[in-house]
Parts: sequence; C-alpha cells; structure tokens
Amino acid sequence: MSEIKQTGQKKLVIVSGRAHPQLALDVAAALETSVVHTDARTFANGEIYARYDESVRGADVFVLQSMPAPLNEHVMESLIMVDALKRASVKRITVVVPFYPYGRQDKKGRGREPISARLMADLYKAAGADRIMSVDLHAAQIQGFFDGPVDHLFAMPVLLEHFKKLDNTTLTVVSPDMGRVRVADIWSDKLGAPLAIIHKRRDPLVPNQVSVHEIVGEVEGRVCLIVDDLIDTGRTIAKAAQALKEAGALGVIVAATHAVFSDPAVELLQSEFIDEVVVTDTLPLPPEKRFPSLTVLPIAPLLARAIYEVFDDGSVTSMFDGAA
Amino acid sequence: MSEIKQTGQKKLVIVSGRAHPQLALDVAAALETSVVHTDARTFANGEIYARYDESVRGADVFVLQSMPAPLNEHVMESLIMVDALKRASVKRITVVVPFYPYGRQDKKGRGREPISARLMADLYKAAGADRIMSVDLHAAQIQGFFDGPVDHLFAMPVLLEHFKKLDNTTLTVVSPDMGRVRVADIWSDKLGAPLAIIHKRRDPLVPNQVSVHEIVGEVEGRVCLIVDDLIDTGRTIAKAAQALKEAGALGVIVAATHAVFSDPAVELLQSEFIDEVVVTDTLPLPPEKRFPSLTVLPIAPLLARAIYEVFDDGSVTSMFDGAA
Amino acid sequence: MSEIKQTGQKKLVIVSGRAHPQLALDVAAALETSVVHTDARTFANGEIYARYDESVRGADVFVLQSMPAPLNEHVMESLIMVDALKRASVKRITVVVPFYPYGRQDKKGRGREPISARLMADLYKAAGADRIMSVDLHAAQIQGFFDGPVDHLFAMPVLLEHFKKLDNTTLTVVSPDMGRVRVADIWSDKLGAPLAIIHKRRDPLVPNQVSVHEIVGEVEGRVCLIVDDLIDTGRTIAKAAQALKEAGALGVIVAATHAVFSDPAVELLQSEFIDEVVVTDTLPLPPEKRFPSLTVLPIAPLLARAIYEVFDDGSVTSMFDGAA
Amino acid sequence: MSEIKQTGQKKLVIVSGRAHPQLALDVAAALETSVVHTDARTFANGEIYARYDESVRGADVFVLQSMPAPLNEHVMESLIMVDALKRASVKRITVVVPFYPYGRQDKKGRGREPISARLMADLYKAAGADRIMSVDLHAAQIQGFFDGPVDHLFAMPVLLEHFKKLDNTTLTVVSPDMGRVRVADIWSDKLGAPLAIIHKRRDPLVPNQVSVHEIVGEVEGRVCLIVDDLIDTGRTIAKAAQALKEAGALGVIVAATHAVFSDPAVELLQSEFIDEVVVTDTLPLPPEKRFPSLTVLPIAPLLARAIYEVFDDGSVTSMFDGAA
Amino acid sequence: MSEIKQTGQKKLVIVSGRAHPQLALDVAAALETSVVHTDARTFANGEIYARYDESVRGADVFVLQSMPAPLNEHVMESLIMVDALKRASVKRITVVVPFYPYGRQDKKGRGREPISARLMADLYKAAGADRIMSVDLHAAQIQGFFDGPVDHLFAMPVLLEHFKKLDNTTLTVVSPDMGRVRVADIWSDKLGAPLAIIHKRRDPLVPNQVSVHEIVGEVEGRVCLIVDDLIDTGRTIAKAAQALKEAGALGVIVAATHAVFSDPAVELLQSEFIDEVVVTDTLPLPPEKRFPSLTVLPIAPLLARAIYEVFDDGSVTSMFDGAA
Amino acid sequence: MSEIKQTGQKKLVIVSGRAHPQLALDVAAALETSVVHTDARTFANGEIYARYDESVRGADVFVLQSMPAPLNEHVMESLIMVDALKRASVKRITVVVPFYPYGRQDKKGRGREPISARLMADLYKAAGADRIMSVDLHAAQIQGFFDGPVDHLFAMPVLLEHFKKLDNTTLTVVSPDMGRVRVADIWSDKLGAPLAIIHKRRDPLVPNQVSVHEIVGEVEGRVCLIVDDLIDTGRTIAKAAQALKEAGALGVIVAATHAVFSDPAVELLQSEFIDEVVVTDTLPLPPEKRFPSLTVLPIAPLLARAIYEVFDDGSVTSMFDGAA
Repeated sequence: MSEIKQTGQKKLVIVSGRAHPQLALDVAAALETSVVHTDARTFANGEIYARYDESVRGADVFVLQSMPAPLNEHVMESLIMVDALKRASVKRITVVVPFYPYGRQDKKGRGREPISARLMADLYKAAGADRIMSVDLHAAQIQGFFDGPVDHLFAMPVLLEHFKKLDNTTLTVVSPDMGRVRVADIWSDKLGAPLAIIHKRRDPLVPNQVSVHEIVGEVEGRVCLIVDDLIDTGRTIAKAAQALKEAGALGVIVAATHAVFSDPAVELLQSEFIDEVVVTDTLPLPPEKRFPSLTVLPIAPLLARAIYEVFDDGSVTSMFDGAA
Repeated sequence: MSEIKQTGQKKLVIVSGRAHPQLALDVAAALETSVVHTDARTFANGEIYARYDESVRGADVFVLQSMPAPLNEHVMESLIMVDALKRASVKRITVVVPFYPYGRQDKKGRGREPISARLMADLYKAAGADRIMSVDLHAAQIQGFFDGPVDHLFAMPVLLEHFKKLDNTTLTVVSPDMGRVRVADIWSDKLGAPLAIIHKRRDPLVPNQVSVHEIVGEVEGRVCLIVDDLIDTGRTIAKAAQALKEAGALGVIVAATHAVFSDPAVELLQSEFIDEVVVTDTLPLPPEKRFPSLTVLPIAPLLARAIYEVFDDGSVTSMFDGAA
Repeated sequence: MSEIKQTGQKKLVIVSGRAHPQLALDVAAALETSVVHTDARTFANGEIYARYDESVRGADVFVLQSMPAPLNEHVMESLIMVDALKRASVKRITVVVPFYPYGRQDKKGRGREPISARLMADLYKAAGADRIMSVDLHAAQIQGFFDGPVDHLFAMPVLLEHFKKLDNTTLTVVSPDMGRVRVADIWSDKLGAPLAIIHKRRDPLVPNQVSVHEIVGEVEGRVCLIVDDLIDTGRTIAKAAQALKEAGALGVIVAATHAVFSDPAVELLQSEFIDEVVVTDTLPLPPEKRFPSLTVLPIAPLLARAIYEVFDDGSVTSMFDGAA
Repeated sequence: MSEIKQTGQKKLVIVSGRAHPQLALDVAAALETSVVHTDARTFANGEIYARYDESVRGADVFVLQSMPAPLNEHVMESLIMVDALKRASVKRITVVVPFYPYGRQDKKGRGREPISARLMADLYKAAGADRIMSVDLHAAQIQGFFDGPVDHLFAMPVLLEHFKKLDNTTLTVVSPDMGRVRVADIWSDKLGAPLAIIHKRRDPLVPNQVSVHEIVGEVEGRVCLIVDDLIDTGRTIAKAAQALKEAGALGVIVAATHAVFSDPAVELLQSEFIDEVVVTDTLPLPPEKRFPSLTVLPIAPLLARAIYEVFDDGSVTSMFDGAA
Repeated sequence: MSEIKQTGQKKLVIVSGRAHPQLALDVAAALETSVVHTDARTFANGEIYARYDESVRGADVFVLQSMPAPLNEHVMESLIMVDALKRASVKRITVVVPFYPYGRQDKKGRGREPISARLMADLYKAAGADRIMSVDLHAAQIQGFFDGPVDHLFAMPVLLEHFKKLDNTTLTVVSPDMGRVRVADIWSDKLGAPLAIIHKRRDPLVPNQVSVHEIVGEVEGRVCLIVDDLIDTGRTIAKAAQALKEAGALGVIVAATHAVFSDPAVELLQSEFIDEVVVTDTLPLPPEKRFPSLTVLPIAPLLARAIYEVFDDGSVTSMFDGAA
Repeated sequence: MSEIKQTGQKKLVIVSGRAHPQLALDVAAALETSVVHTDARTFANGEIYARYDESVRGADVFVLQSMPAPLNEHVMESLIMVDALKRASVKRITVVVPFYPYGRQDKKGRGREPISARLMADLYKAAGADRIMSVDLHAAQIQGFFDGPVDHLFAMPVLLEHFKKLDNTTLTVVSPDMGRVRVADIWSDKLGAPLAIIHKRRDPLVPNQVSVHEIVGEVEGRVCLIVDDLIDTGRTIAKAAQALKEAGALGVIVAATHAVFSDPAVELLQSEFIDEVVVTDTLPLPPEKRFPSLTVLPIAPLLARAIYEVFDDGSVTSMFDGAA
C-alpha cells in the first residue's frame, strides 16, 4: 500500500495588522483564543515588512485590518500580510476589513475615473485572499466586486439593541441625503417609525446659487434619528441636524456604523443641535476623538461570531434573520 | 530586411442578435453603414447556432443584443456570437446590451443567493468580450462587475428633450419607491422641480398588516412625473399613480428608460390615474404592447454616437456633459 | 496556543435544477439521502432566481441539471445555481449534466463559427464549477475543453445489460452515419458482432443530386442494432432503418443514450422499419414522448455510484473496467 | 496639446525553431521576405537558449516549428521562443505547428491519463501565444483546446491536386481503421469514389485471439487509396495494404499529410503491397527517410498564404471553399 | 459593404502621480510634449482620488510615479491611476517606476515572509498594467516577477559620463557588501579598474561578537569608487568609506542610482571620509536632502528616450549596447 | 437531513518521473511508504505517455522529477504527469524538482532573451501544479516566479556535516566567480573562515585581450574550499583551482549541491589541482560520472523530511534554523 493516511484537521488562526490591535484582541478573546503575533515593521523609506512568528501551514486564517487614516498604509500592510500567508501554505485566507476601504468610489460618476472599490477587491484577490468579510458596505453591490465569497455583516442588531429604549411613537428616522435613503428605509421598517429625508436642491434658473437643504417629510415635534453607514467629516450630518432642529425637531440622535471622524467631525458632532452620537468601533477611536455625547458600541462580538460560523461551516445568514 | 510592412487600418463592424433586429438597423443607419449578417438559427432541441456571413478578421466589432423575454435565449445567443468572434480573430469585441440582463440581482439580499448581474459580466468575459456598453444600469456599481471598460450611457438627454415643454413651476418629480430615489434626485436637479417619494411602511406592532403607501413630500395640485429606470409589471407605478391622484395630484406622467412591460404592465399603465407614459426602445415593443398614451423615443441615435466615439477613440463622456 | 482545532469533516449535498427533478430524486434515493431544496423561480421578464433553503457551507455539492428544450433556460439556471454556491462558500462544485449541452458544436466546421461545446465549459468555469460529470459525450475530446477534472461516464453497461439476451451470431451492429463509427466499433467489439455502416454519398458529376444512402457491410438476414449516442429528430435513424430493412435485414433495433426526441422523432421512431428503441432517461421523457416500442432504462444508479466515488475519493474508472 | 501622434503600421515577422529550417525558408520565400535569425543553442546539460538578432517590437510574429523526434526538444524550444517574444513586446504571437504535437492524446481513454493535446495548448497559452496555426489536426476538436483563435488548415487541396489524374470510376477510398473513417468519408465525397473500411475485430468467445482485419466494402478489382492524417510506424497501413491486395485490389496508393515515419515505417512502406506513398513536408524528411515510391508535396505555399491572410486580416476560410 | 474604415493612429500620452512632478515635466520636455493633467486628491480620511482632465481613449499611456516616502501612498496612487486608465479604454498602459518599490524584499529569506517585490508586480497586473519600465532593479530577476514585458534601464551610461574624467590607473571599484558585488564587477569591467569588496564577518567562536568589516582586495593609495544601486540610510556606505580611508585610500567617491536618503543618510554622507556623492534623480531630492558634495544627474533624458523607443517600436536594447 | 457526512482524511502519495528513480525510492523508504507506480513510456516519435496504476483521487501528491540531460524530456514528462494528476482529481500537486530546470536563465541579460526560469514556473502552473519544492535555487528570487508556495530547501546542512572535520583556522572559502559571492559569504559565515574571490577582468585598453583570473583575498598557505550551487562543465572550477594552487594554496576542495557534470566535467574535476569534490545526488550520477576523489552525499533524507512537514502542516522553516 503506497499511501500515508491521517485524519484531517481544521485550525483557526487570527492575525492582525497594526491599524486597530485592540479589535483583534477583543475578537480573539470572544473566541477564547489568541492572536498569532505578526512581526510587522515600517522601514525608514516607508516600506512595510511583515512575518508571522508561528507556523500557519494548513490553517484557516483570518487577517483583521481596520482602515483608519493613513488608510493606504493599512491597505498595503494587509496585502503584504496576505502575500506572506499565501506563500506560507495556509489553507484559506479571509480578509476581515470591518470598514471596507474606498467603498464610496464604487462607480464611475464621471469619465476617466477609477472604480477604486473594485480595485481593492482585485488587489486582495491578486495578493491571494480567498474571501472577504466586512461590515455595512457603503453599497451592497460591492459584494459583487470580489471574485469569491463575501460575508457582508450588518451592525444594525448591535445598534438597535442600544435604541430599543426609544419610544417609536415620537420617533422619525431621517436620511441625511438622497444617497442613504435605503439605509433609513430599513431603520424605519425595523423601528416602525416614519421617515424624513434631507434633500439638497439648486434652482437651475439662479446661477451659482447655493443649494437649499429642504426636509421632505414631517419632523416638527419629533425625535429625529439620523442614520448613516459612516460619519466622515460630519458636515452633512451637522447641517442636517441644524435643519431638523430649526424645523422644530425635539431631539436629534445620530447613529452610524463607521466612525471615520476626519477633521472637523469631532468638533461638528458636539454641536448644540445634536443630542447623542452612537457608533461602533469598526475603526479605532483614540481618546482625542471621543467626547461626552458619544457612545461607542463594540463590534468584536459580531465579528467573532461570524468568523466562527465561517470556520465551522455554519450559517452567517442565521445571524441576521435571513438577511446576508 | 526581414519584415513585411503595411499601414494599419481600423474597421468598424456591427452584428446583431435576433432579439431586436430593428434597433441594429437603426443604429447602422445612423452610422451610415449596414449590419453584417449573422446566420443565426435555433435547432429543434433548443441549441442556438450563429455564424457570420462576411470576414470580420481584425475588425472592431459591436455585438448588439436586446434582452426582452425569453431573456436567457438572448443572453446565450449573444455569448455564442462573442465566442464565434473571438475564434474569428477580431480585434476587439464590444457587447452592446442597451438593457443589462439580471441587473436587479446586483447583490446578495439574503444568504445563498446568486449575484446574477456579476455572473453576466463574468460570462461575457469568459466568452471573450473586451468591453460592455449599456444604457441606464439598474445600479451604477454594475460597471465595476466587468473586468474591463464599461460604457454607461444615460437616456436622460433623450427623455429630457421630450419633457422640455413641461412647466417646472407646477411639476414635482416622484420616486415610486425608496430604491429609486437617486434617479428622482437627478431629475429633480435637472428640471429644477421639487421631489416627492412614495414610501411603503409596515406597522411592526400590527402583525400581517399590509404595508401602507405613504407620500413623503407635497403633491397636491402638482403635475407629478414618476421616474424610474425600468417598468416591469407596472404594479409599483400603478399604485404610485393612484396614491398621487388620490392625494390631489393634477396629473401623472411616467418616464422610464427600459420598457420591460411584463404582464400585466400594458393593462395597468392604461389606468385612469396615468396620463402619459414615455419610454425608449432599448427593448422591442411589438404592436400588442403599444397603447395610445404611450410615447416611444428612439435610443438608436444615442447608441450610434457612443459606438462611433468608441471606435474613433473619441470621448463618450462629452456626450453627457462630463457624466459617464 | 493560538489555534482553534477541529476534526475535518466532509459533507455530500445534492441540489437540482428544474429540468428533470425526478432524476435528482432517483439519484438521491440511490444514495439514501435527499435533495437540498432550491427555491428556483422564473420572473415575468424571463429572469431566473435561485436560492438554497439550507446552509451548504463547506459541502461537496453536486448540481444536477438535465438539458431538454428549452435548453438555454436550463443552462442559465445551472450557471446561476453555481454562482450562488460559489458565493455561499461551498468546498467543491461538481456540475452533473448527464447530457452535455451543445456537444455537437465541438469544432469549427466552417470559418466564423463558434465552438459552443468549449464555450459551455468556459461558462461553467467562469461561474465557479470545479468539475463536470457527464454521460456519453458526443466527442470524448470535450473532456479536454474543461480546465479541470471531468468524469466521463458511459451508459454502455446499462444498455448492454438490456441486450445481453440477444443472439450475437445473427446480430450486426450498424452505425447510422460515418460520424458514429467509433461508437459502433466499441459495440461490435463488446458484442462480438460484425459491423455495417450507412454511408451518404453524392456523385460529384451530377449537380444537385440527392445523396444516396449506401450500406457498407453485410446486413441481409441479420438482426441490425443501430447504435448512436443520441436521437434528436430521428431522421437519420429512420432512413437508416428503412435502408436496412430494404436490404433484407430481419430486424432493426435502435439503442441510444440520450433521448432528445425533437419533433418529429416520436413519430418517425414508430416507423414500421423499427422494431424496438432503447434509451436511458438522461433527459426527461414526458408521457407524450413515450410509445409502445420504447424502453427507457434508468441512469440514476450509474450517476449515484459515480457521485459517491467522487465524494469518497474512490475510483470512477473501476466502474468501467479501466475505461474513463 | 499633450499627445504625440503617429500613423499606425503593421509588420510581419517570421522566426523559426531548429526542427525544420528549410520549411521556414520556403514559407519566407513564398512571402518574398526572409526569416529573422534566431540565435538558438542547446547547452551541454540540455538547456535550450534562444534570442532574436533583430528588434521585433510591435511586430506580428509567426513562430514556425515542426515537430519531428526528438519532439519534446522542439516543443520546449518553441515555448522558449514564445516567452522571449512576449518579453520583447511584440504585438501578436502566432505559433505555426504544421504537425500538432501530442494530437493523438486528445482525450482520456482510461482513468488517470493526461490529455496531452490540451496540455500543449495550455503550455503555449502560458508562454504567451495568441494564436495557433496547424495543418490537419488529428481531431478537429483540438481547435477547442486553445483559448483563442486557431487556424486549422487542410492539406487536402495540395494532395487532391496530385491525385486529379486518377480515374475515379475504378477508385475506392479506404480507411485503414475505424478511427479515420471521417477523413476517408471526405475524400470519398471529394473524389466521387466509394468507400471501404478495414475493421479490426476480436471474437469475444475465443480468449487471447488475435484480432482479424476484415474489410467492410468492395475492393476487388479496384484501385485502393488508403487515406490517413499521419503515418507513424506504418504498421496499420502495411497490414491494410496487404489485406486489400489479398482481397483482390488492383493497386494500393497511400496518402497522408504528416510523414512521422518512425521505425520501421520506411521499410514497411516499401512493401510489395504498396504502389505509391504521397505525403507533404509538414515534418522534415531527411534522405534516409525517402524512397523511390515516395512523393513529397510542399506544404509551404499553403502556410505562406494562410500566414499572409492572417496578417492582412483576410479570410483563411476562403482558401478552403468555406471550410476552416 | 458593411464596414467603416479608418487609418490607424498611435498616440503617446504621459501622466504623472504626485510623488515627483518635476521628473514628469522633464521627461515630457525631452519628448517635446506635455503631461496630461491628472486631478489627483487625497481626502481627509486618506483615500486617494484621481481623474484625467483629457480623453485618453486609444492612447499608449505612460504612468510616471516615483517612490519616495511615504511610499505606500505613491504605490496606491499609481494603482488607482492605472485602474482609471483601464476603464477609460486606453490601448496600452506602461507603469514607469524609476525606483521599483519593495525591490529589496525579492525573496523569502526566512519562513512566513512575503515576497513583496513579486506582490507589487501582481498588484500592477491586477490593476491593469501591460508593461513596467524601471531603472536599475535591485535584482535583475525582478523582471521575471511581472507577467509581461519589463523594460529594465541602466543608469550606468549617465553615471559613467560623469566619471569619464577619472584616472582609471589609480582607481579601485569597491562593493560596499557581498550583495552588491555583481554591480561592482560591471563597473570594474567598464572602467578597467581593479575591484575590492567590504566583507562583514563574525567569528562563530566568539558569541555576540560584533561583525568585522574586512576589506578583500587592495585599496591603499587608491581612489576608491564605492558603487551601489541605492543609498537608503547610508550606514553601510559610511562604514565602508571609513574602513577604506583607514586602510589608506586616497579618496572615496560614492556612486548610486537611487537616492532614497532615509534618515540619517544626509548627515552620514557628509562624513569626512567621503569626498563626493553622485546620484540620479529617480527619486525627488528636496533642498533639505541636498548638500555641497552631492551631485545629482538627471534621469529624464534616459526615460524619455526609452519611452519613445517603446512607443515607436524601436529598440530599447540599442540604448545600452546590447544589454537590456 | 440532506447531507451525507464523513470524517475527512489526508493521504500522502509519491510518484516519480523516469529521470532518477532511485531518488524516489530513497525518499519513499525514508518515509516508510512506497512509490505509486507510473506507467510512463516514450513512443517511437518521441511523445511521452504517463498513467498512474492506482487511484490517486483526493490525495496530496508529490511528483518527484530530477533534471539531468536530456532535460527537456524530463521537464515534459513531469508536466504530463501533473496534467494527468489534475484530471484525476487529486487534492494538491507538489512538484519536487531537486535541481530547478533553466535556473540560470533567470533574467534578461540582453534584449530579446527569454526568462526561461519564469517560463518553467508558468508551465508548471498551467499544467496544474499547486506548489514547487526545490533545493538550492540558482537565485533565491526564483521563488517569486511561481504564483504559489515554493519550498526552498538548502543542502548546506548536509554538506556542512561532511566538512565539520575541517580545521577552520587554515581554511579559506572561495567563490569561483563574482556571481556566486553570496553563496561563499554564507559558507564563510557558517565556517568562521575568511573569504577569497576569483575575479575575471579584461583591460579595456587592450582589444581582444583574454580576461585575467585575479584572486581577490589571501589564499597562500591556506586550504581553499571552492563553493558553488552547481558544477556544469567544470571549466570555471578547474581554472579557479589552478589559479589557487599557483597562488600557493595548500589544498583545494570543491563543494556543490548539483552535480550536472556535463562534458568535460568528469575529466576536469580529476585535475591535479583539485583534492576532493563533494556533491549531493539531486541529479543521478551513473558509474561513468563517478571518480575516486568524488564524494556523493544523499539528498533523500532532506527531501523526505520536507515532504512530510508539508503533508503534516508542520514547519519546513524549522529544518533550517529559521531560514526558508
């Protein structure tokens, strides 16, 4: 007989880039395991080096990388980490990017533009990624950019849990612009609350006119919950909050999954027109980006459960009542 | 000297599937050329055969195929036509599908679903297509599904030309549901008219309750222009029109690019609540699908101009004032 | 220690397209399992939707699809099913097409033709298929069209079992045309019976002359067994049978694997010149395609055994005494 | 203005491996050009080196390589030549292999076999070939093995011209075994002559019995033209010729495209049972492989014309009255 | 007649990333053209956006990007620029990276390391690059990492021109470590000067011993020319210079192609042991990185000539007397 | 429940080409298994055929092939073996080539050259190889040529064990030319011995002058250990040995991993200037290539251990103290 036989075995390994080490620790803790240490360094000329301290051959590896600024550093680090895994003969590589980079450049709005969100998918594929896991993609179609399975998780259960105390009879869900109406629609449905939309409009007959923020829907005397997938500079949110308060809203709460918080977001979000801001920690939030009215909900339990379901060939879908 | 030299030459060739031969003739006429005849047949067991009657070696070939029902027949015919072109040594193959097939299945809404819109892009790539040209994709992100250039054309200039007579001081642009708000937003901007949205909402406290069509925005005493990228069964449009009239709208006009017109669209669109329906002929409209209040605008001039710009290395962007 | 370990496990899952559900049930029954239900639907405009009702993550999935008319619907349905499996993170996808679609368009007979049989292999690959299993390919070379393993099964053991009662001293195996001589040769060898061939020939000196069906080999006083891989319209078979009877054949029996039975096959095969027709059920045979002299042999046991061998890393070859 | 413009130009370049330099010279002469010299060498340890003496950037290059023994040397040399062209930035690479290597291993006849003919296509693709040109493939399906255009040329016009003096009223076309019946059928049709087939058969009731060569069809008093795509060891041909003469054939002529002539072909073909052997020079025929009854027809004019049509975007099809 | 014909035309277009705009201007000036403007921006969260201001359809585009720190920003910007070009239907994309990023991570020195130089090639390929042009790759084998043509240019002619005044009878070429001996060997050959090597060696019997810099070859009373492909922190060079002077060298000149000049290079290179430093401007050298003993030679003429040869299908090889 | 479940199992299978059967037997013996027999044959016209005698479905297969002359035969045989494995549904294919073919053609030294070492990697990938294992690659960068994991083994532990008796106080490590200095550097470091280099130099002022072999470093009164990765014709080694002895070396020992031994290596290596030659059996050494001063060390234990580590998901790195 000319074969050597062994019983097959599956191993789950978690590695992490340097963008948000706490998140990896939280995920590993939730899975009752630890993070395999990566020797990652940046040389004086800017080149990144990464090497794993333990053998990962044959393992089912999850590469966690968050994407705060400087985002391109973190993208490149994760690509280099995937390349090293590919050459180290792992069984499967899942890139876990809770906040998908370049998700807003998901189409050509004008001629001679890139579709950077597709490019990211192509780069991960070229480096050797087998699957991608992400939370609240800016457009769900980004799932179709990657040539392989994408686990699209929703932070909504995490956020909803926080808002379950709210009285939906006085609540109105608000989309801060036309592009996020779909997200607001789902919230409206889940909370059983009516919907309002902030609509920017120019009068085409008046040249160089500044656009008007008009509110479509009823907000007077209502508690307004502005929902969005991400908060970047906070400008759109801040203007929306002001418009709502000026239109008679009793309160304004802001909920978003990804706290990008580029300048001057931290300042704008502490505006008198905003009563509370609720986000998750898909992106690291250093002390200087935190403020009294900000609540940060942990995303690690969601990621940990999804990672285990993927490893165990369970169902990620069942985490979201059929969606996903 | 061991080379044979010749001056290079470019040749534009148009071929057409059997779904909408008139459109190909119109496009060729607009280009002052003719359609290279394809010997296309369907055998008794359903297999399709296609062969070109003239040599196409070295040509820049545009394969026109419209996608009415039975849609899968037309998809497969166009794939077979592309395969034959690839093996016939053409220089470049552009698939022109004015109405992109499976455009609505552009993401996984639930677990274990396909992303058929991405699959279509992959199938055309596998068959040998170098580029895709389409009109008013259901989601602009579909551009990112194809691994190569996509020319995304907009029918809006064609439709706007028809509506330029309308008085925008009495006009309100209406989105028939939450998913199409972005389209309505652009129309609102172009026409300088306010926006209203039809919002389906369930009361989560009342089980099995039918969802309510509530109108967000002002429509009383207004002429309402419902805009959408496509009209399939017409049910959403018809309900929206009724709701608008019941809310006091003076008139209801419907504008859409793609006239899919599955049953019972033709019947529903002749409802008393709809005053006019305006579409383009990206899909063939046989006599039994035409009715008195329907206006069909020709899409061939737009396609012909875009095809020529592609062939001539001109700018498709410039056709849309920077967009595309 | 930073790994989570589990013992590996293999799961066999069978799913089926809508073309021939009974075959899938028969195969599952033979394997003492059941078919995972697929929610497959065709929308009014012809688009197909498919979704699996149970989790299939990590499974070794076999997608059964038969290919009767309308064949392109069934091809596209199976491609969409494969796409959904790929995105659902299954371990391996084997497409089981008992009758390979477009098998007869396996080469360029003339310039500017497609090679549709290769295109089918490319489309399945693009959708995400890892392997293909089929029965009696029209040309064995089609195995080489797919970039991966192909399990090529032979129905001959099933058919031979039926014919083992025949007296080979009075039997002659007949190829109905030049293209199927190889098949007839194998039958001749297995049955120890002589061979005859029907040869269509034109006299090049007589323009527009109808070709003559001449019989090469002895058939007078013999029982003739016409063998072919498939019966489509039945015209070639019917003419061959008539020619054989007119040349003095005592009996004419027809054996084929794939009962395509396009019009007017059912009528022609009930001709006075044909005594019996024997086929398998690789294609569904509704009551209106069945007739008294037709015998339909079940192919499910063969498929079930091959599927199990593939799942179990056994040998498909051993099913055919070394061939395959 | 920020572009530099030039009129495009096409250049045809011919390079040749070392297997059959005379054929390349003949092809170049027919095209009134010369062969770009390749510095090709084999090092002591067997490694091959190839480099072009002139710049080939931007050229439409045809790599001629014949495939006599030692065949693997010639395959590898041509792959290396293609790699060097790819890296030298040529515009297009067409591999011209008049005799396709490994054409007979075109399917899995048994389990765990390679499909070497597909492998060759994959290797040429991997090296960088854009197209393949070959003469009389062993199976026409091999066209479908290459992922790109294949120009399949037929030597039949060359051979038919030689045989036009034969009297077709006394002629019978003979297939030397079951596998080549299709080729004989085409000859029979072109010459208006009847067909006969040599059929090897074992009696399954007599163990270890040698197979019998029986002749299906009439040959007594006829001039027999045995046709095949290639002659390798000549054993099948020699046995067929003897059987024909013993069955009363007046004369036996052998026609084949590819003169592989492995031992002992040269001896066997000079048998008393064979009156003439006609081949082309797709493979080099050194003096020791030539004999008095052998006629060698030049294939260079056919290749030269096809190469020019490909370069000039003309029609290769038209060379063969629609076939190809 | 159903074709539209045009004479083919070639257009050369140069675009540039933001890393080293002066180099692009110099190259364009040398070609008597201009740089097509790119609207490139970095958003607050670090995402890069790029769009071309003029149509580039059908053009032969050269994307110039230098790679100073922060290197990953520049890599990502160039990838995004390539993606935008691919979708804008250009004819060919050549990425011109005078200093190839991550060139030193060209192999796995230890287990579980990446091969980042190969990764870069794969990323450019995935983004859509057709060719790469670079100067003095750290290892010539990097040419083989890209799946397509690589134009590998040598700065040596530029540097040699500067040193032609040196008296080679008193000159010794020095390799600063074992890894650069090949470069020194070529200089030694070109200048007709002897060679010396700095060799770092540890005594394995003395634990934790600092390695010794021993000089292999004669340097006393000689003018030493230390050559390297790049100067990063300058530590190796500075130690070599000191060792040479201490061993009696009359003078020490340093020549390198790529002036990476990470800290503390600028300080170290102004050491008393170094008389002159000569580099090219493949990387931008801002005023704070320039010092009195530094000579910067322009690389733009070399790049411009190579770009033109590629565009014109001329010979890049001829620029280097056969090498390249 | 609709799944059939089984515990997963891993099977290790070793197959071997015909180049060096003893090595495969030695490796299998070291693993306490046997070699699965391959029915490999070469037909009269040079075509190779290979088929496995036992089922290999689902196995982790290692294809051993050594690469002595005629090297192209062995390359092609191994490619065909890989193709057969791919189609036989094995789980993973690792090609074990102890001596990597065409390793010296690892870059373009001049224009219009191939990079044959990359081509080899591409051919193995195209055939279906998942990984490559090799010993002492000519350039470590070749690891980056293959798009997947490469296990790069070092013979140094095997060779060092043999030399541990040598007195390093009298030993000098010698690189026979500039290109192998890196290898000599590692030996120097491991043995704690100084380094010398043979340097070929031409005087550019004297035309057609033969190059001089000058020795850089001290060798008088030393025992010189010339190290190289391979010995081909032996000319460089023989000249180096003579130069060393003439410069006063007490003894000359030669150590190399790969004994290519092309003519006239066997004669030259028995020169009076060489005292001992030590190699491994990565290539077969028939009796006529063995001579009294030659020591051949077995490589099979190293390969066996690496193969087991790969199969067992262990660490190959740990075999080399962190390197690899």
